Amino acid sequence: VEILDQTRLPREEVWLDGSDPDHMIQHIKALSVRGAPLIGVAAAFSLGCFAQRGHGETAIRSAARRLVDARPTAVNLRYAIERQLLAFDRSGPDAIMREAIAQFQEDVELCENMAQRGAALIHEGEGILTHCNSGGLATAGVGTALGVLIRAHQLGRGIQVFVDETRPLLQGGRLTAWELSRHGVPFTLITDSMAPVLMRQGRIQRVMLGADRVAMNGDFANKIGTYGVAVAAAYHGVPFHPVAPRSTVDPHCATGDDIPIEEREAHEVRGAHGGFGSLSWAPADAPVFNPAFDVTPASLITSMVLDNGVLSREALAAGALRNLLDQPGTHRRESVHV
Amino acid sequence: VEILDQTRLPREEVWLDGSDPDHMIQHIKALSVRGAPLIGVAAAFSLGCFAQRGHGETAIRSAARRLVDARPTAVNLRYAIERQLLAFDRSGPDAIMREAIAQFQEDVELCENMAQRGAALIHEGEGILTHCNSGGLATAGVGTALGVLIRAHQLGRGIQVFVDETRPLLQGGRLTAWELSRHGVPFTLITDSMAPVLMRQGRIQRVMLGADRVAMNGDFANKIGTYGVAVAAAYHGVPFHPVAPRSTVDPHCATGDDIPIEEREAHEVRGAHGGFGSLSWAPADAPVFNPAFDVTPASLITSMVLDNGVLSREALAAGALRNLLDQPGTHRRESVHV
Repeated sequence: VEILDQTRLPREEVWLDGSDPDHMIQHIKALSVRGAPLIGVAAAFSLGCFAQRGHGETAIRSAARRLVDARPTAVNLRYAIERQLLAFDRSGPDAIMREAIAQFQEDVELCENMAQRGAALIHEGEGILTHCNSGGLATAGVGTALGVLIRAHQLGRGIQVFVDETRPLLQGGRLTAWELSRHGVPFTLITDSMAPVLMRQGRIQRVMLGADRVAMNGDFANKIGTYGVAVAAAYHGVPFHPVAPRSTVDPHCATGDDIPIEEREAHEVRGAHGGFGSLSWAPADAPVFNPAFDVTPASLITSMVLDNGVLSREALAAGALRNLLDQPGTHRRESVHV
Repeated sequence: VEILDQTRLPREEVWLDGSDPDHMIQHIKALSVRGAPLIGVAAAFSLGCFAQRGHGETAIRSAARRLVDARPTAVNLRYAIERQLLAFDRSGPDAIMREAIAQFQEDVELCENMAQRGAALIHEGEGILTHCNSGGLATAGVGTALGVLIRAHQLGRGIQVFVDETRPLLQGGRLTAWELSRHGVPFTLITDSMAPVLMRQGRIQRVMLGADRVAMNGDFANKIGTYGVAVAAAYHGVPFHPVAPRSTVDPHCATGDDIPIEEREAHEVRGAHGGFGSLSWAPADAPVFNPAFDVTPASLITSMVLDNGVLSREALAAGALRNLLDQPGTHRRESVHV
């Protein structure tokens, strides 16, 4: 199992070994591997490798727990590992890797379905804002929101993407800009503070971005800054769509208040750090607030694009996510505790 | 005339010679000297030095024009130079430096008046968001919005300031954080994308920030990102106050549409550059949108704090800025063309 080190992009393409769960945990914490769906799949493969090396049940369960704790906000990670432990209980250690492979294939399919459903919403010539990175670097497939935008471009919709850089970790400026370049999608890079001006100027007709965890009422957690984009979109009447696979929906969270928000280290905000180099510009002792995610209430969503449906604000308010999770192919509601 | 190089702060305190207008123009363009009021005063001193060196009228008028063109959005610069040329017409070359000294003293007084009027609006224990830098580094005196916050702290109001870093040039993270540290004002540094979350959490009770140019209807230009802060404040019902001296009001601009907005170079958004170092993280050919300022409509202002009055949204809409400019001590409406 090798993963592309996303802290080094776009400067270098460096692959890291991920066959050991404790190494994978370090990669997840360092954001070398990121994106809620991809974290789940990557962690699943590392647990699969671990089981194949002949470790016993106690060691497997302990590694599983450590993996789940590596990223508390992303629910896909917990589900991926829970599914593997269920498979292990039923069929023994080899089932752990089989389950990882199945999850990988599923994620590719989920991305295809989201890309199709999302692209159908996009009109000719739209300017579309996205935040953070929700592309092939965040999933096993073509991506969630970014997959939609790439598909719309390939379908000849003539879109223009506005990429906000996504401070403090700059996933937009580094990763989304790099992916859109590679796919030949026209884009413009902006700072996070510029999106409201472009909305006022009528240059942004739609917002599409990912989700790290979706509560049952449609509230969702995503990269810090998402809530501000949602507020600006609502103020300007710009349609706003999170794009996420079913695996991102957490039946244990009734509302966004139930989603834990990870806080990260102060030095990230005092400067910029990554494979591209390291700089600090703020006073070294400046007190900092640095939540990795924020929660956007469902009331600000125009519609949510899932792999198996597009849900309007009204449908979300009426509890439609419950019905979607009940559809065939959804493994996520089984109750396991890691 | 020496100016503190603001691109080197907070790492180093380096003073630059500003007695030659063409050097001063370079300092203004490089943002070594910045802040609408300070740019005006600094440019005025450089023209004063130039005149004292015995240059003739043609050379003085030519230097004056080049200085005015150095920063199109900041109107204080144009007024400062226009006043000097009027003084020159009346009293000859020595009047140019006398006028610079008078402007410096005036700016100190204007700041005092704003600090008093603004601090009177602030309640005990408030969390107050500010954007960019509007302190002693932006004026000859204690500052505009930041002067208000420092005064409120000195008066024992127990405020907590939230400083957004202000991408791309990081005046908040570098300069405002440094000034607040020096004055012992409690603050928290955040990225620009975090302010809406803090408003939603009820941790920000007020927004105070500067203005680079104010139109007669109350619309104002300020550092890029101000408009987004205004939208978020309006959405959350948080009072929003630009703080500016009369010299920032431009009688030639009926509305914000008349304010020219300078666009800056793409590399600023592709990375971070300054006296603290230089880094690029985005693809080197990423297309960029980089306006230095944006315009906030008067309809989003709760009240505007000027040195000689506090004007509510309703007063602004009723044309109160016209009356304020008619008050004694306002030199700004004389019609000169540089």
